[in-house]
Amino acid sequence: MTVAALPAIIRPLIEPQLPDWVEPRWFASKEKALEVAPQAEIGWFDMYDHVAMAETVRAATGLKWLNSVYAGLDFLPLDLLAERKVTITNGAGIGALTIAEYVVMLMLTHAKGYRDVVRAQDRREWLLDSPGKMELAGSRALLLGLGAIGSLIRTRLEAFDVEVVPVRRSAADGALGPDEWRGKLGEFDWVILAVPATPETDGMIGAAELAAMKDSAVLVNIARGTVVDQPALIAALEGRRIGGALLDVTTPEPLPPESPLWTLPNAQVTMHLSGRAQDKMFARSAERFLANCNRYRAGEPLAPIFDPARGY
Amino acid sequence: MTVAALPAIIRPLIEPQLPDWVEPRWFASKEKALEVAPQAEIGWFDMYDHVAMAETVRAATGLKWLNSVYAGLDFLPLDLLAERKVTITNGAGIGALTIAEYVVMLMLTHAKGYRDVVRAQDRREWLLDSPGKMELAGSRALLLGLGAIGSLIRTRLEAFDVEVVPVRRSAADGALGPDEWRGKLGEFDWVILAVPATPETDGMIGAAELAAMKDSAVLVNIARGTVVDQPALIAALEGRRIGGALLDVTTPEPLPPESPLWTLPNAQVTMHLSGRAQDKMFARSAERFLANCNRYRAGEPLAPIFDPARGY
Repeated sequence: MTVAALPAIIRPLIEPQLPDWVEPRWFASKEKALEVAPQAEIGWFDMYDHVAMAETVRAATGLKWLNSVYAGLDFLPLDLLAERKVTITNGAGIGALTIAEYVVMLMLTHAKGYRDVVRAQDRREWLLDSPGKMELAGSRALLLGLGAIGSLIRTRLEAFDVEVVPVRRSAADGALGPDEWRGKLGEFDWVILAVPATPETDGMIGAAELAAMKDSAVLVNIARGTVVDQPALIAALEGRRIGGALLDVTTPEPLPPESPLWTLPNAQVTMHLSGRAQDKMFARSAERFLANCNRYRAGEPLAPIFDPARGY
Repeated sequence: MTVAALPAIIRPLIEPQLPDWVEPRWFASKEKALEVAPQAEIGWFDMYDHVAMAETVRAATGLKWLNSVYAGLDFLPLDLLAERKVTITNGAGIGALTIAEYVVMLMLTHAKGYRDVVRAQDRREWLLDSPGKMELAGSRALLLGLGAIGSLIRTRLEAFDVEVVPVRRSAADGALGPDEWRGKLGEFDWVILAVPATPETDGMIGAAELAAMKDSAVLVNIARGTVVDQPALIAALEGRRIGGALLDVTTPEPLPPESPLWTLPNAQVTMHLSGRAQDKMFARSAERFLANCNRYRAGEPLAPIFDPARGY
């Protein structure tokens, strides 16, 4: 029997189809997770408390396969996992569809000034003109990161007649190379961050990049708060040097109540909800996990693999 | 010289290119419009006050060509215009792009419960889960009206993997015929009204149609308030017999403060702003008007023609 530490929340989705060689140890609290971790060969340790999750992973000294519903796992002890040669499967793509929908929604709500319409309805006030008058059609978007999420964003925006220019390792087919995009920042109405959180992308949007953007351009961040120099962003928003920021992610999370981002009229804060705006997250994860169980037993490669050295 | 009564607001866009055979009479008030109307052979009488606009049109006894930025002109004395054989050009298509963008925005904000995210940001509250968990992908939309607006809605929704089933005079290519859609209402997650306001579409969504919809289905109305039996809609929303209503149009407009639609949690009221969420409306109208001036002079057909007998 192979011991698998599994979250109780997915038990109804997993248990009926769990292979008989797997001995599940369900946990419903971080204390219980920490208790079962050392016995586990297979571990699925997702918790909202990422610090506790990292601690549990550290305690899982016999772990061979770590599974997660999250796409980004930068909060885990990746060096240790690499050293222990743990195979990691992540949630890449599970939230991609709903995140892509969320991004287009945020861009549209910015374009049409929709938050002011919501507030007017709450006041029972019939507005005579639209608070926002931008059209997506004819605008240009720089898309940093063309993984599962970025690709879905691209096709959706293109249907709105947005010209989407992705950044790729090698510039081709209208894409910009990694050394080219900074010089062209001033040509875009939208700068969309869909990159993984790696040392390379840490702080990739700082004061210089924000200064190079159009004063009407909007930064969209669904990657990680750390990809943006947040104090520089706040200064740019306060000085109205860019048009706005649509932030699903911030530094830190939760964002403290005293952060100016909450009240800046040109900042939308969406509390890392973009990937959670779906009811299929657990079902999709369970289905993937069960398929990977069979591959694990057969000695076949699992998918999708998260490389702790690369960071995605 | 041909006298044209024209709104002062578009003067900067029209005057530099106005042909010399046109003698413009600019007006900046409804009183002035009423004064110049009887002299006008060409009239562009758009005003926010539709009652005053109708009165002005009635007073324009020598009118041969009436132009408008509006697509729907059901508030004008259409019988009288037909009797007087006035050629009418309307704004069909001018707002289509931004209205289509608005519709997708509303559907996404409903799916993700975005209004509650806006309100949470206003309270500086970091939500732990998404108030809405629907995905557009995989949902099905019934699209009533496949004119300029409907066609643009369709392509945008299809990029989100929404199955869009239009209603057409003749059922073909997956479209439903005018006698078929009522029997299939229960199969759709979205019912989108993009029809013109005509006697045929008046009250086309009533208690029976609302009862036939899924209890999670959402009605989207960007046509006219009169297309929906509003008391029946309010009852359905109050009884949670449908999932929601996204209403750019209401009966009457402005919606009175005492209407329950303002505060129903499953109703969004967007104050007929969808077509105004653009900054190109006047430029597009001016360009069209000038092109039609040249056709008018040459005795060629104007476009697009609004048929007062048909109502669109």
